[in-house]
Amino acid sequence: MNTIITISREFGSGGHQIGKKLAEILEIPFYDKEIIEKSAKDSGICKEFFEEHDEKYTNSLLYSLVVGNYSMTADGRLNPEMPMNQKIFLAQFDTIKNLAREGACVIVGRCADYVLSERKDTLSVFISADMDDRKQRVAQRCDIKENKLFDFINKNDKKRANYYNFYTDRKWGTAKNYDLCINSSSLGIEGAVELIKKAIEIKENT
Amino acid sequence: MNTIITISREFGSGGHQIGKKLAEILEIPFYDKEIIEKSAKDSGICKEFFEEHDEKYTNSLLYSLVVGNYSMTADGRLNPEMPMNQKIFLAQFDTIKNLAREGACVIVGRCADYVLSERKDTLSVFISADMDDRKQRVAQRCDIKENKLFDFINKNDKKRANYYNFYTDRKWGTAKNYDLCINSSSLGIEGAVELIKKAIEIKENT
Repeated sequence: MNTIITISREFGSGGHQIGKKLAEILEIPFYDKEIIEKSAKDSGICKEFFEEHDEKYTNSLLYSLVVGNYSMTADGRLNPEMPMNQKIFLAQFDTIKNLAREGACVIVGRCADYVLSERKDTLSVFISADMDDRKQRVAQRCDIKENKLFDFINKNDKKRANYYNFYTDRKWGTAKNYDLCINSSSLGIEGAVELIKKAIEIKENT
Repeated sequence: MNTIITISREFGSGGHQIGKKLAEILEIPFYDKEIIEKSAKDSGICKEFFEEHDEKYTNSLLYSLVVGNYSMTADGRLNPEMPMNQKIFLAQFDTIKNLAREGACVIVGRCADYVLSERKDTLSVFISADMDDRKQRVAQRCDIKENKLFDFINKNDKKRANYYNFYTDRKWGTAKNYDLCINSSSLGIEGAVELIKKAIEIKENT
């Protein structure tokens, strides 16, 4: 087994859980929020900045002014430096590339499928789920009123989509971008793990 | 095995081939263009009309006037009757519902995933593939110049997408609409068949 598995996921679809179980069964490293810690350490950028920008895309001039991404030139014009969110994307980009060089692993989110798209030894997976199941899953881990769940889930999906669509030339959640897409409501969490394992076997023998 | 498998597919992705092989292995009926014949027979609408409108969506007033879908009322206004393409969609809709009632089968295209979405015993699959593989596959069966292949493939994808997006409340090729999406370039034709078989097993045991 030498495949790197990337997992993109709808918010509340169980993608994290599927990736973690898969990594346990295959006895390979698992990276989700762990990437933040590692990127912060490798890049020297403060960890809190990573947490703030994690899978979020911020493109407002006001924001850039506030966090000081723009300074004034001698003649009074705005002098754009690289915005913090781009610095952070690039640091995560490097971390993901380096992790993949170390061998088989599971990487969740952070455009990893795009970052590693030129490696033939990756399997890119997208996990979706029906809204009712996502609501139930999110309600278990977040303290949110039931009538706010739908908006909360959609808002988080939108954040992930904006981040992905901005940094890649692809569209988040479009089937053709991924090797394999699974609806975890139809096939279950265990079923999704089993199916990804089967896909790895097939890909490694093709 | 009592699952009905619906296959949506990018043009030239091998979806037809995958569906046919799967049906052979599972020893269940396979329907692609066969639906046209059956719908024509069941509905009494001329088969040639089905062929003309197959997975195409035509919404132009001019077209409707030409084929006589609009007649004039006594006071000179346009009197819309049901356009032929909608009649044909509904006839195919009935045929697909009836075929599913007969038991396990593979149905390719024609919004079958949407038509049967309320049945729990279906597995909806979407097949995509890399453009180079699609070009090669299309070149083998159509007499088209190499420099025209890209446009020809995209035009046919667009037709399928327009048809699907018009008749359903979904978006063609969006991962979340399907139980399973497979890139046949990554996993191969045989691999895709194997993976769908595995997904059926998982779904039937869940």
